[in-house]
Amino acid sequence: MTTEKVPPIAEEMPTVAPEGAQVGGAEADAAGVAGLRAPAVDVEAMRVLLDGRYREVRDLVRANLVEHAAVLVDAEEMDRAEFRDRVRDVVVMMAETGQTGMGFPEEYGGGGDIGASIAAFETLAYGDLSVLVKVGVQFGLFGGAILQLGTKVHHDAHLADLVAGRTMGCFAMTESGHGSNVQALGTVASYDVEAQEFVITTPDDASRKDYIGNAAAHAELAVVFAQLEVPGEEGVERHGVHAFVVPIREGGRVLDGVRVGDDGPKMGLNGVDNGRLWFDGVRVPRTALLNQFAEVTPEGRYLSPIDNPNRRFFTMLGTLVQGRVCVGGAGINAAKVALAIALRYSVRRRQFEATSSEEEQVLLDYGMHQRRLLPLLARTYALHFAQEVVSGQLHEVFSGPGPTEPGSDEHARRMLESRAAGTKALGTWHATRTIQECREACGGAGYLSENRFAALKADTDVFTTFEGDNHVLLQLVAKGLLTDYAGEFEEMDQLGMARFVAGLAVDTVVERTAVHKLVQSVRDLLPGGDSWDQEAGLLDPNYQLAMLRFREEHMIAGVARRLKRGIDQGGNAGAVFSRVQDHVIAAARAHTERLVLEAFVAKVASVPDGDLKDALGLLCDLHALATIEADRAWFMEHGRLSSTRSKAISREVNALCRRVRPIAVDLADAFGVPDEVLRSPDLLGWTDTGPVR
Amino acid sequence: MTTEKVPPIAEEMPTVAPEGAQVGGAEADAAGVAGLRAPAVDVEAMRVLLDGRYREVRDLVRANLVEHAAVLVDAEEMDRAEFRDRVRDVVVMMAETGQTGMGFPEEYGGGGDIGASIAAFETLAYGDLSVLVKVGVQFGLFGGAILQLGTKVHHDAHLADLVAGRTMGCFAMTESGHGSNVQALGTVASYDVEAQEFVITTPDDASRKDYIGNAAAHAELAVVFAQLEVPGEEGVERHGVHAFVVPIREGGRVLDGVRVGDDGPKMGLNGVDNGRLWFDGVRVPRTALLNQFAEVTPEGRYLSPIDNPNRRFFTMLGTLVQGRVCVGGAGINAAKVALAIALRYSVRRRQFEATSSEEEQVLLDYGMHQRRLLPLLARTYALHFAQEVVSGQLHEVFSGPGPTEPGSDEHARRMLESRAAGTKALGTWHATRTIQECREACGGAGYLSENRFAALKADTDVFTTFEGDNHVLLQLVAKGLLTDYAGEFEEMDQLGMARFVAGLAVDTVVERTAVHKLVQSVRDLLPGGDSWDQEAGLLDPNYQLAMLRFREEHMIAGVARRLKRGIDQGGNAGAVFSRVQDHVIAAARAHTERLVLEAFVAKVASVPDGDLKDALGLLCDLHALATIEADRAWFMEHGRLSSTRSKAISREVNALCRRVRPIAVDLADAFGVPDEVLRSPDLLGWTDTGPVR
Repeated sequence: MTTEKVPPIAEEMPTVAPEGAQVGGAEADAAGVAGLRAPAVDVEAMRVLLDGRYREVRDLVRANLVEHAAVLVDAEEMDRAEFRDRVRDVVVMMAETGQTGMGFPEEYGGGGDIGASIAAFETLAYGDLSVLVKVGVQFGLFGGAILQLGTKVHHDAHLADLVAGRTMGCFAMTESGHGSNVQALGTVASYDVEAQEFVITTPDDASRKDYIGNAAAHAELAVVFAQLEVPGEEGVERHGVHAFVVPIREGGRVLDGVRVGDDGPKMGLNGVDNGRLWFDGVRVPRTALLNQFAEVTPEGRYLSPIDNPNRRFFTMLGTLVQGRVCVGGAGINAAKVALAIALRYSVRRRQFEATSSEEEQVLLDYGMHQRRLLPLLARTYALHFAQEVVSGQLHEVFSGPGPTEPGSDEHARRMLESRAAGTKALGTWHATRTIQECREACGGAGYLSENRFAALKADTDVFTTFEGDNHVLLQLVAKGLLTDYAGEFEEMDQLGMARFVAGLAVDTVVERTAVHKLVQSVRDLLPGGDSWDQEAGLLDPNYQLAMLRFREEHMIAGVARRLKRGIDQGGNAGAVFSRVQDHVIAAARAHTERLVLEAFVAKVASVPDGDLKDALGLLCDLHALATIEADRAWFMEHGRLSSTRSKAISREVNALCRRVRPIAVDLADAFGVPDEVLRSPDLLGWTDTGPVR
Repeated sequence: MTTEKVPPIAEEMPTVAPEGAQVGGAEADAAGVAGLRAPAVDVEAMRVLLDGRYREVRDLVRANLVEHAAVLVDAEEMDRAEFRDRVRDVVVMMAETGQTGMGFPEEYGGGGDIGASIAAFETLAYGDLSVLVKVGVQFGLFGGAILQLGTKVHHDAHLADLVAGRTMGCFAMTESGHGSNVQALGTVASYDVEAQEFVITTPDDASRKDYIGNAAAHAELAVVFAQLEVPGEEGVERHGVHAFVVPIREGGRVLDGVRVGDDGPKMGLNGVDNGRLWFDGVRVPRTALLNQFAEVTPEGRYLSPIDNPNRRFFTMLGTLVQGRVCVGGAGINAAKVALAIALRYSVRRRQFEATSSEEEQVLLDYGMHQRRLLPLLARTYALHFAQEVVSGQLHEVFSGPGPTEPGSDEHARRMLESRAAGTKALGTWHATRTIQECREACGGAGYLSENRFAALKADTDVFTTFEGDNHVLLQLVAKGLLTDYAGEFEEMDQLGMARFVAGLAVDTVVERTAVHKLVQSVRDLLPGGDSWDQEAGLLDPNYQLAMLRFREEHMIAGVARRLKRGIDQGGNAGAVFSRVQDHVIAAARAHTERLVLEAFVAKVASVPDGDLKDALGLLCDLHALATIEADRAWFMEHGRLSSTRSKAISREVNALCRRVRPIAVDLADAFGVPDEVLRSPDLLGWTDTGPVR
């Protein structure tokens, strides 16, 4: 247990609980019981707390968003070509304010602060998301590859121009036939010793680069991922995937040997020019290889500080983790925009006129409407704080020594990659779900483009897929859990993982996950001893965390057992893995859910006593119990929840919703989404001076 | 129990089941156990079965869709004004084939078959959905209002022209300030005795007509819903909402006194010209009142065959139920398009190259991928057959005597309205969920517009809202259940319902829902006597249905008790209803889920023995158990599922997924979505001769 937060609410609960369980406030109504005063929310103070250490950076981005708010309308009215150019122009203008270069070294015009660059990117998600993704492509993917995979020669050649937005680039990794399986991509970079050049070739259509942002119209340079081949004594030596800087346009003209296709209209993000690239023997100098982790000498000799080719590959990819952290944060912030609109609307709109004024209710007074929106609000806070943890860890790791430098902590890098993957998956699924629910909660008006949901929904849809498909990412998380983030197993694909786990004594995994140890420690901490899961207060964060930990560890041990049993019984690894796959993914989700709740509980514990802490405590309880409730079937199936207590949790979630209801709009306002980007004139009842509050 | 289907599979199951429960085939693998041969699916025979009695109508629509398939591309490439005109032109061309007029009397150029008109509309959902919705507006809403609410004078004046598409019209009911609460709308139609005219006025901006399809550009006539006022002896008499035919354009010019606004860009359906209407003292003749259910004499006397104003209002609205049936069917068919693409893709694509060819697997071989798509496939079949039942009932009711004619069965009308509401809600939510899951299952490619998901997702989004918000519709269903569809309680809003139920002896409702009677009858039917819920086979449809019935009846009785207790304890009706609302909606859902499963089970029972029946039986089991599994927490909480048996159900769902896997693509192909409207060249691997199968 990492916290000793004592929830201020639990003590005020009536002690007579139904059916013997100490269930908290379920039967108490916020309006009706003394002592259950709803905390007042100081919106500005909450915003300061949410903005955290990068408040100034976030405010700079907010100001830029307001300045360029018209781009939200242009997204609807301009044709595709025009809007692409418009978005590029906005990106370049934003670059001039320093907003987009926070993560680059100061000597190249950057801000030298990785955490700041994440904060800036997250905040940008309040506005038009084509602008966001274009920024991500240019500064995160393209710029990040030059920075992380290149060395001084590349930095000197490109960073100042790309940070300023003078050179646009793209990140040509994904191929049509190889989505999540980067290691198998088909583009070839063959070294020609005579010319001291690499020759880049697309061997077939499955190997064309696809969905590449900035490729269709704007990029002059591409970082191209290709299979590196050098001539060897016994024929061609293949050294796996490496990245090369390849010019593809000059003065807007596509260069010889490069073919560009346009991915055409997309569901959303039509301000980003996604395209396809084919290379027909394009020659680039030897120095085009981004040589942070491998080098080819003029004579064609291959050198790398990392011997194992798989480890080299994953180390390379690992430096790109920032993209995942950014997309997760962007998803969470897009959800905030949707909630800000839907919650403000829900206190303005009446569904039916009541027959007497005393009974008149706005939408948010309805139990169903509370149920639809308030757990999502609580979860948004939870994910916000989880995101704060992962971006903080990223800042730490990437501000320290590089992966091949002395003092590099490889285990910390693997943990970060896993955490980033899990948070990205949960954050982006949360965006999809929240935006949909908020749209429906605004009825037909939510369908009109001026009310933001159209763009939010269409633009964020692909967040669950890009920077790693969420299901594939959760498999990565599970792999880390099962192998204890062992560096030497980095290379394993899912079949390798199945075989590896089967090869262990299952006790190794089971011992590591140690459900029995967990239960022992919980027993000491919570009232009720062996019956902790029956007698602890539902609003005790130690109980809530113990439940999520139990689920996680039980699931991981179960996956390990099933993999081992399957392979011991002679199944082939593919078939065994296939049957356990949903269990694998559930375990990874359970793990990430536990991390999210831990982050929230720790944050609440860190806040000084007062209304702010009380409000966050309410949200944290709501999030924790709604999370347990959502999987209460599993807890009942595994003996950790009686049917009586399960029902009590649902009642408690309802009661918490009623208690959050009076402060819900303030809690959404504290996200600090500028009015100018909310739009929604009818939903929010704009007058000449702004929306009615 | 309405069926005695004995599932052909259950008998072939291994009888040794873990932990004493007879769990069916969970531990058996389709590939590995003799006797579990996967049924072969004759795609054409399955299509004939799905198409049902209106196969020719559906084929006509398919041919028209192929003919006009280019409109799917135009949706992406044309600007809004151009695309609106294009869609209108397609609608008029389709009208010329007779496709859109099936439901109108033959003497006006219609087909005289209501069931055929539903079938045609459903099938149209395979293509561009702006075309679908424009058809719905013109022929369903506008034409339907003239037909159902008007009398011969209106039919003679308008039907032939509107059926042919020569006169375009709109249905002006919804107002900005009154979405789901039609009875409270603000537009006024005041009778001027002197002039023998109605004067139509929009009193304020909350009363402007909004989201009205066809209003922004094309409609010449509007059916306007307004509060009817006639002069009385003691001042103005208000008679509630009535419908009037009001000309709004002539030769493309908006008429004096009418103001038109444009709703502008929308999330989707941008080929439909949604707009706003304001009326400033627009005068229409006395005969403009659609006078099927009420009349104003030249002298200004109000007459109606229905005395009670609320009943009159709901009788009027009730004639418009066809729209809901149509939207539900359209949602289900849109889901079919998404599944057809995602399933075909899933057997072409490999996620990772396996290390040996024997282990090579396509996406659909993965357990998680099966879990994501196959229960949705099964549910699509279930909803298809449920939709077949409700459209059949609609055909029966509307081919019989009108609501004020002798022999009219008001109870049957109320039941139909309830069933249509529930099926619409489940069908449209299913569309949203299925399209989203299929998009994600196709990865980044699913994001490109040419692969259909972009339009499917954006266009269907509003289905959950229009023709009645799904949550409001489910409240309507619950009201019917709680009041036994009592005609005299039609007028009740939710507060009235709360008060009414509280006024009953709770026993009345509890007796009606009669969980105890249900349990008795199940006891006689299933093995295991009192322990039927522990010992019946999971694949026994009687068990599956008994579970869904138990849940439904338990929930309805629970809602009744909670409403009564809340009001007895002195709560005001609004607050009491608010707290029970999620329970109310859950009960309505549970009711509709039971109807859906009953429809599927009955259909399977009606099919002669053979592969077709076996395949449907597999799907029906998968649907039933996935439905129980989704709410297994509730069943455990209410003592109808042990944790052991709950886990067995999850294993069985996995096993059924594996058994459906080999026939999944055939089952999707049997929907008969024409290749030409699937598009998706890369996902489906089109060659010059069509998609690779």
